[in-house]
Amino acid sequence: MTLVAVAQSMTFEAPLALRSGASIRGYSLAFETYGTLNADKTNAVLICHALNASHHVAGVYADQPGSTGWWDTMIGPGKPVDTNRFFVIGVNNLGSCFGSTGPMHVNPDTGKVYGADFPVVTVEDWVNAQAKLLDQLGIQTLAAVMGGSLGGMQALSWTLQYPQRVKHAVVVASAPNLTAENIAFNEVARRAIVTDPDFHGGHFYEHGAIPKRGLRIARMIGHITYLSDDVMNEKFGRQLRDGLDIRYTTQDVEFQIESYLRYQGDKFSDYFDANTYLLITRALDYFDPALHQGGSLAKAFAQVQAKFLLVSFTTDWRFAPARSREMVKALLDNRRDVSYAEIDAPHGHDAFLLEDERYMAVVRAYFERIALEVAV
Amino acid sequence: MTLVAVAQSMTFEAPLALRSGASIRGYSLAFETYGTLNADKTNAVLICHALNASHHVAGVYADQPGSTGWWDTMIGPGKPVDTNRFFVIGVNNLGSCFGSTGPMHVNPDTGKVYGADFPVVTVEDWVNAQAKLLDQLGIQTLAAVMGGSLGGMQALSWTLQYPQRVKHAVVVASAPNLTAENIAFNEVARRAIVTDPDFHGGHFYEHGAIPKRGLRIARMIGHITYLSDDVMNEKFGRQLRDGLDIRYTTQDVEFQIESYLRYQGDKFSDYFDANTYLLITRALDYFDPALHQGGSLAKAFAQVQAKFLLVSFTTDWRFAPARSREMVKALLDNRRDVSYAEIDAPHGHDAFLLEDERYMAVVRAYFERIALEVAV
Repeated sequence: MTLVAVAQSMTFEAPLALRSGASIRGYSLAFETYGTLNADKTNAVLICHALNASHHVAGVYADQPGSTGWWDTMIGPGKPVDTNRFFVIGVNNLGSCFGSTGPMHVNPDTGKVYGADFPVVTVEDWVNAQAKLLDQLGIQTLAAVMGGSLGGMQALSWTLQYPQRVKHAVVVASAPNLTAENIAFNEVARRAIVTDPDFHGGHFYEHGAIPKRGLRIARMIGHITYLSDDVMNEKFGRQLRDGLDIRYTTQDVEFQIESYLRYQGDKFSDYFDANTYLLITRALDYFDPALHQGGSLAKAFAQVQAKFLLVSFTTDWRFAPARSREMVKALLDNRRDVSYAEIDAPHGHDAFLLEDERYMAVVRAYFERIALEVAV
Repeated sequence: MTLVAVAQSMTFEAPLALRSGASIRGYSLAFETYGTLNADKTNAVLICHALNASHHVAGVYADQPGSTGWWDTMIGPGKPVDTNRFFVIGVNNLGSCFGSTGPMHVNPDTGKVYGADFPVVTVEDWVNAQAKLLDQLGIQTLAAVMGGSLGGMQALSWTLQYPQRVKHAVVVASAPNLTAENIAFNEVARRAIVTDPDFHGGHFYEHGAIPKRGLRIARMIGHITYLSDDVMNEKFGRQLRDGLDIRYTTQDVEFQIESYLRYQGDKFSDYFDANTYLLITRALDYFDPALHQGGSLAKAFAQVQAKFLLVSFTTDWRFAPARSREMVKALLDNRRDVSYAEIDAPHGHDAFLLEDERYMAVVRAYFERIALEVAV
């Protein structure tokens, strides 16, 4: 059975106060829902997205073959997050470029496109915006909030910002904050974008330009860090594009891996917004719930009430298993209910988006447990 | 005792045939020597450099305080490679930008600056050029050839190209070829340079331009991969530049690690040549002695006669210990004499340039053994 997805949008006139001290008003959130909200509104599951994803989590749009949602392997009728049982909500975050208000939209206060003046948004801001969307949908409590990578940070932040409103948090391939190396990779990508002459300080829209060079470099760096060394060697190794003949060129493609990266960079630069890239990587950099607890994650987690499933992948060097174990320990220090699975998968950080049998089974089992608590 | 270094240069009129099929004539090699060649010319040690280094291996230039050679911790009077016993030679590779003929020089065949037309050079080509320099210096046999990273590849290649001319090879933090991930990082750096509008297809000299944006990005990527995650966390962690106050900015520096990377990028772009960056990273990509042996390193090493010391560092993820172990195994498969040390050091790939006590002790002991074979 094909799940048909329908994109929706909701506009919020009241200003949303942001962490930075700024606020944003008259903004819209794009979202989708799958399945049916039960009578007592206890079966809602919120899915949070990472850098390059959206509210289009599952299913396909009518008349648009190939428009499959980004986590369709995980979410749908009969799938681990079963839309026959749960009312699943996907929402595009503020500042993104897939439908919610972002840098390419008009600032109602100035009548001009935001561009680089779009306010800096944080994980906490996104969670607050998501909470207001749930308010409008009449949903007080989430059966679960779930996300991978940056989406996992949002799921975690939900349990800290709205401890009463979350029963379960499913945090996949994530971390309680970025390491210096993570920030470093984000910074190089941002510098590539910002120093592209077509960036124009972030006001490239009014110049009719797109900083594609920078976006390509940013995406290439991203791709390297999403994959494991092993899977890269297996997929591409040292294969030359032209069989066994070395062409001796410094500027043209010689190895298959180069061809792959260039293709990914080109594709990305055609649809992704440069200001959004800066905003989302900054939200990643800033997330650090332990910052004002003297660096103690255990202290930061003291108010958590949700139960947790954490999943990590052995070859993920961007959000390594050790980072998930830090969260598990801090939750156990607070005697919280935690399940943790470390999946031996070769695919690096990307594994959280792929259909690994054991991974799927763990999530399925956990949601079956949640379903028992929910009158469907 | 301060070792005073004196840069020398030697010009070669005869064409050097290159792997690519091209050749280069009328080229110069910059080099330095330290210590005294013994009467039977058996105490020569050749040091090969990596990406961002030169013939200035040890000592300081007279009247230039701070001009310490890049491997001065390792090489000098009484140091692990003791210039009181050995005649040490440092040579700048063809295509580099520190004195030997490179892309910024004039092509004698055209009367124009080479720029992007400088021929593609390989590790094998460099070794051939080094051999011709040794011929001129009257050195038939090397007591040892030594290098780290790309320099280690040259040391290894010496034992394959000139098995009769090398008694010992010291290969530090190196690999028998690059992995797909290594190539991928090189390619992103190259793309950043090549797509910089100031690159002008590699003929930027005649436009009075320098592709500094691209060079900065390339260097930032490089720096991340030279360091370990651990040492980055220890040195920078999540420290903000302005104490505890988050400034909420996407384009300015917020974290100390960003400041460090920008500084490194700026510095590098002031002195390094963009075409040299392309050439040297390509030489890294291409090196693969097993390519024409069906991928078998053991077969490739069949003609090796030298004895080996290999050293790797536990936190080096660019040239991981596993890559050194591959070489050790292939040498043992050929019943060659190999010593191998895996040093538990936190500094990542950079460790090969740092003064780790155990590392220094291993190299010192190995060279004491070599000294016993040499009449000094």
